[in-house]
Amino acid sequence: MTGENGRREFVKLSFAAGVPFALGATPDSLAGFASDPGQEELPFFEVVRNRRSVREFKPTPIPDEHLQQILDAARLAPTSGNQQPWKFVVIRDPSVIDELKEACVRKNLEARRARGMEATPEVAEQVTEGLKGYFSAPVYIVVLTDGESRYPTYNHWDGPMAAGYLMLAARALGYGTVFITDSIPADVTKEVLNISDRFTRVCITPLGVPVAWPDTPQKKPLDEFIVQDRF
Amino acid sequence: MTGENGRREFVKLSFAAGVPFALGATPDSLAGFASDPGQEELPFFEVVRNRRSVREFKPTPIPDEHLQQILDAARLAPTSGNQQPWKFVVIRDPSVIDELKEACVRKNLEARRARGMEATPEVAEQVTEGLKGYFSAPVYIVVLTDGESRYPTYNHWDGPMAAGYLMLAARALGYGTVFITDSIPADVTKEVLNISDRFTRVCITPLGVPVAWPDTPQKKPLDEFIVQDRF
Repeated sequence: MTGENGRREFVKLSFAAGVPFALGATPDSLAGFASDPGQEELPFFEVVRNRRSVREFKPTPIPDEHLQQILDAARLAPTSGNQQPWKFVVIRDPSVIDELKEACVRKNLEARRARGMEATPEVAEQVTEGLKGYFSAPVYIVVLTDGESRYPTYNHWDGPMAAGYLMLAARALGYGTVFITDSIPADVTKEVLNISDRFTRVCITPLGVPVAWPDTPQKKPLDEFIVQDRF
Repeated sequence: MTGENGRREFVKLSFAAGVPFALGATPDSLAGFASDPGQEELPFFEVVRNRRSVREFKPTPIPDEHLQQILDAARLAPTSGNQQPWKFVVIRDPSVIDELKEACVRKNLEARRARGMEATPEVAEQVTEGLKGYFSAPVYIVVLTDGESRYPTYNHWDGPMAAGYLMLAARALGYGTVFITDSIPADVTKEVLNISDRFTRVCITPLGVPVAWPDTPQKKPLDEFIVQDRF
């Protein structure tokens, strides 16, 4: 649990003057926090406000106990009839990460060729460069649901909720994630990781210490989401 | 979709006595916390461990600022390309809640008749009694995604994540929720709340102070979910 000083310091930074309250901490306070993952445990609403989609990571390794804590939170997501239909593929082997990256580049070039677009070595280099940030993390987690679960027609709700929990838990310990669908396509993970048709991929996320915590993208005001009582 | 048996099984499982308590705070600490909603803010992992599916509520009203804080957390869920495709129907008018309940009973009896099952006044009373707990909360929230969002084919991920965030945020403030799909069917909410075909319902959840925090249902051990590197 958090030491009192650490938490107060964070809270103070988070509510620094001039920051619109609705969306949380300043980039500075986030950067400070991020440099010391796992050393503090943020209060719930701080975690929600400070989670970001992160696309560039430091190579800093993730201790097993943090990884376990993050996955342990994911499996506690709401689940239909307590079916718990999830699998988490946890990729730490750098050669598997490299294979994923190479397969992404290959697929991208194939798709370009199929559309009659250029797929020269220069383009290949650009594509590789474009994926560099996504592939800079020490760990990747593929969130899957199992088509042979007890209530498979409910998996489409259970899957994303576990992914959402996982990403919040990572943030609580100071790690960044991003819900990737297209940039690392489902068929690439399927091929490289030998995922059978029994499973449906929800997403793949890198997991690591961010190079920087991005600013909050512009969000719609809360009022725009609310309907009172009925339409 | 799963029928009556599946659902009954779910409820039975959820409330099974003697479930080994493996996942967090003691029922006592939960009960103490729950009696005083909003007076404490739990650290992140405590919230995750202590969220439960709650099916019976006290009539205690929910202050506007708590409701706002909960909805504000929901809209900060990860969202594809920052599209934020959500609507939250917030039902506080008791007459609308009554209409929902009556429509649920009516639908249930219609479904019984269509299957050649009994739908006598006694059955109607049993059905009403069965729904009593679900309809004992002061507030209901329907989570919707908008088919006219920027990337509608990604809504099926964004919707459940916002619902998951909402339920965690409620727990952080001491309120119970439950991700309801079948017990309050989508077509009932559609009819009573005038929801157009433009929107897809993710779920409806009651929101209120639990009569009691249920024990944790039996959960699979973490190891069962993990695949190392690849299948």
